[in-house]
Amino acid sequence: MFTSKSLTALAIGLGAIASQAKAEKSTFDSDLTWVSTDSSLPKVVIYNARGTILSASKYGRLDNINYGSGPPVTVDHMIGNVTEVLKVAQLAVVSFPVTGGSAGLNSSLYLNITQHANRHLCTEGSDIAGGIMFHGTNTLEETAFGVDLTLNCSKPFVATGAMRPDTYISPDGRSNFFQAVATAVSPDARDRGGLIAFNDRITSIYYSTKSNANTPDTFRSIEQGNVGAFLGGQPYFYFSGPSYPTGRPHFDVTNTTELPAVVVLYGHRKFFLLSPACFEGANSLDRGLRRLAYVRGCCQWCQVSAFLPVENR
Amino acid sequence: MFTSKSLTALAIGLGAIASQAKAEKSTFDSDLTWVSTDSSLPKVVIYNARGTILSASKYGRLDNINYGSGPPVTVDHMIGNVTEVLKVAQLAVVSFPVTGGSAGLNSSLYLNITQHANRHLCTEGSDIAGGIMFHGTNTLEETAFGVDLTLNCSKPFVATGAMRPDTYISPDGRSNFFQAVATAVSPDARDRGGLIAFNDRITSIYYSTKSNANTPDTFRSIEQGNVGAFLGGQPYFYFSGPSYPTGRPHFDVTNTTELPAVVVLYGHRKFFLLSPACFEGANSLDRGLRRLAYVRGCCQWCQVSAFLPVENR
Amino acid sequence: MFTSKSLTALAIGLGAIASQAKAEKSTFDSDLTWVSTDSSLPKVVIYNARGTILSASKYGRLDNINYGSGPPVTVDHMIGNVTEVLKVAQLAVVSFPVTGGSAGLNSSLYLNITQHANRHLCTEGSDIAGGIMFHGTNTLEETAFGVDLTLNCSKPFVATGAMRPDTYISPDGRSNFFQAVATAVSPDARDRGGLIAFNDRITSIYYSTKSNANTPDTFRSIEQGNVGAFLGGQPYFYFSGPSYPTGRPHFDVTNTTELPAVVVLYGHRKFFLLSPACFEGANSLDRGLRRLAYVRGCCQWCQVSAFLPVENR
Amino acid sequence: MFTSKSLTALAIGLGAIASQAKAEKSTFDSDLTWVSTDSSLPKVVIYNARGTILSASKYGRLDNINYGSGPPVTVDHMIGNVTEVLKVAQLAVVSFPVTGGSAGLNSSLYLNITQHANRHLCTEGSDIAGGIMFHGTNTLEETAFGVDLTLNCSKPFVATGAMRPDTYISPDGRSNFFQAVATAVSPDARDRGGLIAFNDRITSIYYSTKSNANTPDTFRSIEQGNVGAFLGGQPYFYFSGPSYPTGRPHFDVTNTTELPAVVVLYGHRKFFLLSPACFEGANSLDRGLRRLAYVRGCCQWCQVSAFLPVENR
Repeated sequence: MFTSKSLTALAIGLGAIASQAKAEKSTFDSDLTWVSTDSSLPKVVIYNARGTILSASKYGRLDNINYGSGPPVTVDHMIGNVTEVLKVAQLAVVSFPVTGGSAGLNSSLYLNITQHANRHLCTEGSDIAGGIMFHGTNTLEETAFGVDLTLNCSKPFVATGAMRPDTYISPDGRSNFFQAVATAVSPDARDRGGLIAFNDRITSIYYSTKSNANTPDTFRSIEQGNVGAFLGGQPYFYFSGPSYPTGRPHFDVTNTTELPAVVVLYGHRKFFLLSPACFEGANSLDRGLRRLAYVRGCCQWCQVSAFLPVENR
Repeated sequence: MFTSKSLTALAIGLGAIASQAKAEKSTFDSDLTWVSTDSSLPKVVIYNARGTILSASKYGRLDNINYGSGPPVTVDHMIGNVTEVLKVAQLAVVSFPVTGGSAGLNSSLYLNITQHANRHLCTEGSDIAGGIMFHGTNTLEETAFGVDLTLNCSKPFVATGAMRPDTYISPDGRSNFFQAVATAVSPDARDRGGLIAFNDRITSIYYSTKSNANTPDTFRSIEQGNVGAFLGGQPYFYFSGPSYPTGRPHFDVTNTTELPAVVVLYGHRKFFLLSPACFEGANSLDRGLRRLAYVRGCCQWCQVSAFLPVENR
Repeated sequence: MFTSKSLTALAIGLGAIASQAKAEKSTFDSDLTWVSTDSSLPKVVIYNARGTILSASKYGRLDNINYGSGPPVTVDHMIGNVTEVLKVAQLAVVSFPVTGGSAGLNSSLYLNITQHANRHLCTEGSDIAGGIMFHGTNTLEETAFGVDLTLNCSKPFVATGAMRPDTYISPDGRSNFFQAVATAVSPDARDRGGLIAFNDRITSIYYSTKSNANTPDTFRSIEQGNVGAFLGGQPYFYFSGPSYPTGRPHFDVTNTTELPAVVVLYGHRKFFLLSPACFEGANSLDRGLRRLAYVRGCCQWCQVSAFLPVENR
Repeated sequence: MFTSKSLTALAIGLGAIASQAKAEKSTFDSDLTWVSTDSSLPKVVIYNARGTILSASKYGRLDNINYGSGPPVTVDHMIGNVTEVLKVAQLAVVSFPVTGGSAGLNSSLYLNITQHANRHLCTEGSDIAGGIMFHGTNTLEETAFGVDLTLNCSKPFVATGAMRPDTYISPDGRSNFFQAVATAVSPDARDRGGLIAFNDRITSIYYSTKSNANTPDTFRSIEQGNVGAFLGGQPYFYFSGPSYPTGRPHFDVTNTTELPAVVVLYGHRKFFLLSPACFEGANSLDRGLRRLAYVRGCCQWCQVSAFLPVENR
């Protein structure tokens, strides 16, 4: 968990009071330390899986490509850069290990985040308004989707990040950070499922895609559109809620500590056909797998037999 | 190859003359039989890989889902339904075997098409204006991309198809067919690389994606936009040419009869991680493979070592 | 009002029964004659303001430009072409005078339509499921917007039309017609405000724009996206409802027979500045106007004084 | 014209040398003072019509609405904030009076800019690579379009600006500024007509629209797409050039000092019909006008007679 002397010092400088854990502190938020300038403000938890929003480049202010190796920005630096967030919310930070960067993440991360978020946000009587997540954009979709389908209450969960490192000449992450917090505290953001706040737009996690690798306007839902936008940093929703994505399922992962491995065998015409060797291997060694999934470049039907392990043909 | 008595009959009905193969016919087009109502019109070859454009449903005029099993529409039926094409071009048809439908296709198809197209269109002195391709939309992108990168001249190659079977209450394929032919005969369509004519729009094959599974406006290039549009069936290009997609490569497949198999090992976080068994199998049995490709959900860098076969780690 | 012997004959051919007006018929629908093949089907009123969907060209099947002068298609011809609609709804038609075509329409039309629709759909106890509107696309936005803001109940009002005349080689209107009816009878379409069903998409009237002059995919809401789409002719909504556009106002026009004229003085830089003469004229003669509106190319502020009539400066 | 002691001081700090006007200086650039850190870099003129890119708010770092009244940012402040521009170009600044802000501009501005730009860029033998324009976004389209249609050579003219004031928490203008300069010095940017560099995208002025009032991704060409994008601040063009927008006209304004006034009478159904008084006024007093333009909400035809001044009916 994240505890930061420097953040506390900053908050004190802003008139903030890091809340003292009371003896009788309830279980659901006993791991949180609140940084606050006004105890009447709504509470928001930052689930920190890092990413470009907390990155800096050592190659100068135009680098939005090779910044991975630069010195990392800490969450308290970010709060220090965007102190406006402390005028709209009290904040607590929970950080998660993200070895290998955005592309190195796996399902343990979202399970971890969603179990924290369910306890913090969905415990009966919780006074926490919502949560936001910092995440690398390469796999933000996946982690956010995992949390979205497993969060068990109507409070806002808002993923955000950045496409430009904090050292970029016009960094996008600072605005994204404020907008995510402003969304998490908005009553209008409830009962919509998980959201992404990015580049002045709010989209539904359920329908969002990272559409390109380099520009700030990358998260989009072209068919379903934006759920809302920001003006002066405040969210505006285009349709009155509550309004969940149709068909969005819920999975209870309360007691799940690990997900079973699933082998996905892509067969994409002969251009990319998996070799028989691969199938043999899958057949002989993967009997412990609970599920064998496959994907073909096809929306309507699949030649299943061609892809089944030998024993099942 | 396609030869059709009914088509010839139709053409005769329209005043068309199926050209007689002359004894001294040149090699490059000796396999083509032209259907024509006016021998001064430009010549266009139809490369026929079938697809929804030549499909019919047995479940009624609202079915755009399960029509695969309906009675097929032939090319000459389609020409008979869109006789306007014979007012703008002389046509010849080359049909290709497409067992298994759009999703069952493989690289043999595009190799086959591109070798025909290179001979027909790119032979020095060829009087053929351009070619169009009928193809199922599920893998139209792939076949068209293959032809685009291997065609060796500036003549238009225009892929088309349909999202609704010909029995649909408002079938889109007939208009797409005319528009593809109108593009193939347009001098403005030259020197642009391969094109897709679909739903009143012209896009570059190089940049196009099938964006959804069911609507007529599915082929899009959201970032690069449309190359042109149609008005009254005639193409209008938004920028004056010639103008090829930047970085589009050319591969010579003149003497290629088969492509080497390529195993693509997708590793997409642990959500979908391929099992070690699969890798072991790949390692032990795939030494004959010329190339081992892999894809991670990552634009900028990849942890190659984690994915290499054991012997190469 | 529309009464059609030929339509009745068609319906009879399909097993339809034109309902006989009973002596005690209630007021709200006494002007409607139902064409029906199954009296258990939901009822839908067609508000017919014509447009391209009911147009035919005398210049052939590729004409989507000059078809205005062709022989008109009647509503009963359209129903005859799309008899599938009688399998999902019972239909009645109310036709409106549309002299001058889509561009010649004015606010009388929408007042007229909305007063009919309020009586038919919103009268307490009405058994009518919803209404659809045929309209020329050039001003469909305006009429639909007028009806949307003045309709007083949650039932679906679904605007549709066509971009291609019914004679076009791939006419879009027939599918649009069915899809509009399928939307009007859908319980999921309620409580969303007025909708447009067009080209396999459902958009909110409140947010829709005609984006270009010639293609079937012209009605769009790029920022807010599509509310839903069609598969096999049936609507699918992306978000669960009810969900109205935020800030959508309601105006009661029950007793309004005519709207006051509003002069809009556009001042768009000097490129298009209205001349002083025009302002003088406005000043001297428009004192009876209830409101003087103006628009500048500006979102945030306007130099009102420069545009006020002399007496108010 | 802009001359700045502070800018010169900055440049000197960066090793820049403000070039001394030589006695024999040629006519075409005698009004320019170059700020340079490397005399071998290409030259770019900044045509400064101000706008949000040079604005600051007095209401804090989240204000992107009411910043108009804040203290203005000067061009030399902007260069000081984005000194990277001096690593890719030598710069000179020509400032234009913009009383009333973006919405108060008129055709004098574009005439003024285009005459400067023609002299600077298109004089035979000019060693200036290209020009960029700072402009308020509300009317950037109009001024840029005016310059685009009247510039007489193939050199890049690149409009830019910002949607967020420079005080915003994530200001977009600084990146836009660098990207505009990087485009102006790119040989690949030539022979394409005027361009807009904004929010990591390059669009054609001819096809661009400001699509909303508040977000950084506002300038778009949805139908024709982006001409290119930026990576690491450097432009990448999607299609190889030269490639001008089809149908883009050229007007020679060499000797034009003032454009004739044009009254545009908008007639948009009866909703917004201009009053007869206005027409009478136009008729009686506007005889000196060279042209009477009007716009109806109609793409295909217009009832001209209804809009003509009385004497011409």
